[in-house]
Amino acid sequence: MTGPDLLESQRVRQEIRAGRITGTSRGLAHGFVQCNLAILPKSHAFDFLLYCQRNQRACPVLEVTDAGSPVPKKLAPTADLRTDCARYSIYRDGIRTEDRTDIAELWQDDFVTFLIGSGISIDGALENAGVPTHKDRWVLQTTLPTEPAGPFRGDMIVTMRWLTAQQALTATQVTSRFPFNHGAPIHLGDPAAIGADLKAPLFGGPVPPIPDGIVPVFWACGVTPQSAATNAKLPLFIAHAPAHSFITDLPAQALMSA
Amino acid sequence: MTGPDLLESQRVRQEIRAGRITGTSRGLAHGFVQCNLAILPKSHAFDFLLYCQRNQRACPVLEVTDAGSPVPKKLAPTADLRTDCARYSIYRDGIRTEDRTDIAELWQDDFVTFLIGSGISIDGALENAGVPTHKDRWVLQTTLPTEPAGPFRGDMIVTMRWLTAQQALTATQVTSRFPFNHGAPIHLGDPAAIGADLKAPLFGGPVPPIPDGIVPVFWACGVTPQSAATNAKLPLFIAHAPAHSFITDLPAQALMSA
Repeated sequence: MTGPDLLESQRVRQEIRAGRITGTSRGLAHGFVQCNLAILPKSHAFDFLLYCQRNQRACPVLEVTDAGSPVPKKLAPTADLRTDCARYSIYRDGIRTEDRTDIAELWQDDFVTFLIGSGISIDGALENAGVPTHKDRWVLQTTLPTEPAGPFRGDMIVTMRWLTAQQALTATQVTSRFPFNHGAPIHLGDPAAIGADLKAPLFGGPVPPIPDGIVPVFWACGVTPQSAATNAKLPLFIAHAPAHSFITDLPAQALMSA
Repeated sequence: MTGPDLLESQRVRQEIRAGRITGTSRGLAHGFVQCNLAILPKSHAFDFLLYCQRNQRACPVLEVTDAGSPVPKKLAPTADLRTDCARYSIYRDGIRTEDRTDIAELWQDDFVTFLIGSGISIDGALENAGVPTHKDRWVLQTTLPTEPAGPFRGDMIVTMRWLTAQQALTATQVTSRFPFNHGAPIHLGDPAAIGADLKAPLFGGPVPPIPDGIVPVFWACGVTPQSAATNAKLPLFIAHAPAHSFITDLPAQALMSA
């Protein structure tokens, strides 16, 4: 397939596979669902899937591949998960030892890939509703415990957005309609109530003092399962690199509830 | 705990455990979520959980216990899954060989229990909206394929309700708000379009000719995963007996989306 017959998501993945796009996926293939990746051996797949089931708000699983298959046949049947994410992070014994632009050399026959909904997917719906998504947005560690499964455990990681009161209401309404993609906020207001660590954001710059008239709003974040997998200290675990999500062929609208 | 401090769900489970209730769970502990049970060895738990993830409409997993534990600590922390369902069906090599009122003698240390949302849970919401649920309701085999995982596979099983056009619209609106409990109908109108087998209902009596002014409406049914597990022909698989669901302490409202 070439040119005009390609979906924009397919075109972008071709560019990524060819090494011509290596940066963030934010803003690419607008309107298509983006996924966080978690790639691990089948021996740990039950516990990880169970972790995701037990913490569905943070870990909305959209597809799980068959062991050894690099093809997400439901979300992107023409894709290859070994090459079509712009940047992968490699974790060994829980330590991020390197990033790579493809993982063909590391691929194992027992690898199972989890495609987990990313908040990036609903930016479009928020923008359409008049809620800005490109600034005043951070990813933060909290002290809210998640429910463990096997070796997978840890506190929840959240996305914090700074909104006006009206935007906070609108954003709550809009995201409630994506129950399979983090859904409604898990908290609003005082960051300390959920132990959100403003001093060391995982992504986003330093957090300035909260301005008057601004309401911090918090959503469960898809970095949570990655953090849980890191805590499990598997010999080898592969994820998308932060802000380099995998682009699927699924229209973001498809995740919207009634 | 005794008497007035008990939830109605806990009181009913006590009666079941004591053998004083052995019949259907339909109509019991109104307003509490009822679950279908699937109990199988941990060796098959990943494939079964994956089957449920891949067929979420039919198989909304609400809780998965830790291997060996008979306590669903989230949905009913005071319950014992070996005794607190009124009737269990025992399947050996895919054949239903017997029903039992408790399974303590059959319990294994590697058993994992899946608690899967039952359509019975949303009867209350439908009734409140003026949609009758107690008659003109059947469970039917279809020819809609589900997505397999490991040995778990089969065609979808559906609940068919006969409704007026207005009731069909209301029922669609109401059930859309339960995305984690079968959600909206999967079909409406001609039963043949989904290969629904009207000649051999799995539950409900013989299906009469469809009266004028009646619209058949079809929902994915929680019997689907049980059917998939039967098709897998495991040496031992235990489920709730049809219409004898496990009663949890979760209010049905809790599953309602925005």
